[in-house]
Amino acid sequence: MTKQERGIRSRQAILEAAAEVFDLRGYDAAGTNEILARTGLTRGALYHHFPSKEAIALAVLDAHGAALTAVPEHASRLQSVIDLGFAFADRLRTDVVLRAAVRLAVERTSLTRPAVTPYEQSRAVVRALLADAAERGETLPGLDPDEAADVVIAAFTGVRVMSQVYTDRADLPERLTALWRTLLPGLAAPGMISRLRTTPPTPDGDAATSARSR
Amino acid sequence: MTKQERGIRSRQAILEAAAEVFDLRGYDAAGTNEILARTGLTRGALYHHFPSKEAIALAVLDAHGAALTAVPEHASRLQSVIDLGFAFADRLRTDVVLRAAVRLAVERTSLTRPAVTPYEQSRAVVRALLADAAERGETLPGLDPDEAADVVIAAFTGVRVMSQVYTDRADLPERLTALWRTLLPGLAAPGMISRLRTTPPTPDGDAATSARSR
Repeated sequence: MTKQERGIRSRQAILEAAAEVFDLRGYDAAGTNEILARTGLTRGALYHHFPSKEAIALAVLDAHGAALTAVPEHASRLQSVIDLGFAFADRLRTDVVLRAAVRLAVERTSLTRPAVTPYEQSRAVVRALLADAAERGETLPGLDPDEAADVVIAAFTGVRVMSQVYTDRADLPERLTALWRTLLPGLAAPGMISRLRTTPPTPDGDAATSARSR
Repeated sequence: MTKQERGIRSRQAILEAAAEVFDLRGYDAAGTNEILARTGLTRGALYHHFPSKEAIALAVLDAHGAALTAVPEHASRLQSVIDLGFAFADRLRTDVVLRAAVRLAVERTSLTRPAVTPYEQSRAVVRALLADAAERGETLPGLDPDEAADVVIAAFTGVRVMSQVYTDRADLPERLTALWRTLLPGLAAPGMISRLRTTPPTPDGDAATSARSR
């Protein structure tokens, strides 16, 4: 392992240890001592990579955007929006840095959030998909993609929060299915609804959708 | 002022000071020193009323339930659900104890939440109203009031959180209106939608509704 590789590894170790502590306690109650104890690194090594706790938090927040770059491709843009939510939910289960990012993004703390918050990124992606869906006639006539994107992002956030409170996120997919069942009549053109899958995608792609839309 | 009155006042002062600190920093980062500094009371006085920070937090959480006891009465139960949300939003603006309660209710902290969380209370009230609405034919055929109540509570929570992140709750009423416009087609019987007001009630009661439904 070269010196550069070791540097990348210890930066990632700090980021993950910090994410665990942010996810558990929030920004203000997170201490750098606890973060250090989880990595086994020295305080010098920590400050070599990040000058402050704030710098670590901002790096954690950056992770949120990356979770949105892979938009699931579908003939239907509404299906892409739905599956983006399921993919995000799935990544939350395995990715502690993303879990910490969504907590830091909505929590009131002493941290000054960057001007472009992670939520701006989610909103931009969902808004573009909904605008495209509207152009293709997938949505209700007169739907405002900006307003609809705000509602979708907010509702997703609420479902994520409630699922964490009640089941530590175990029931997040089922809660998302219930959310889409309720939201779609207010978003989708009536003919679209029966063609949209509101359950998580199956591992072998769109088999469930095809079976249902036949 | 009798000794008993003074006791009630100082208990309330502690509760409000603690709520300010919980609302600002969350449970784990809130310190009893800061709470005391805001009341001007002694530590002895604090412990006379509350044996621990946890005891204060549990008293704050109790406040949430009280915000739900006054269900707005309407001929339509769906309108009652909508107006319950607007009343709740309105109280959040003026009531710091309620603001702290909703933060404590959803935040991951070292606080062990009571078995009946404040969200259980919200859910029970909304579920009962939706079940009643379903019996009266106000809802879509086949609507499951339990599932619908979960979606409504989660979506409200998400809208509240996003409104706080972006505008410190200033745009909460407008966001609720957008939410109801999107949610109602998936909840209400088609004939009901035009009869429901999705804007905050006017101070002189239901004038807006009556004007619109004529």
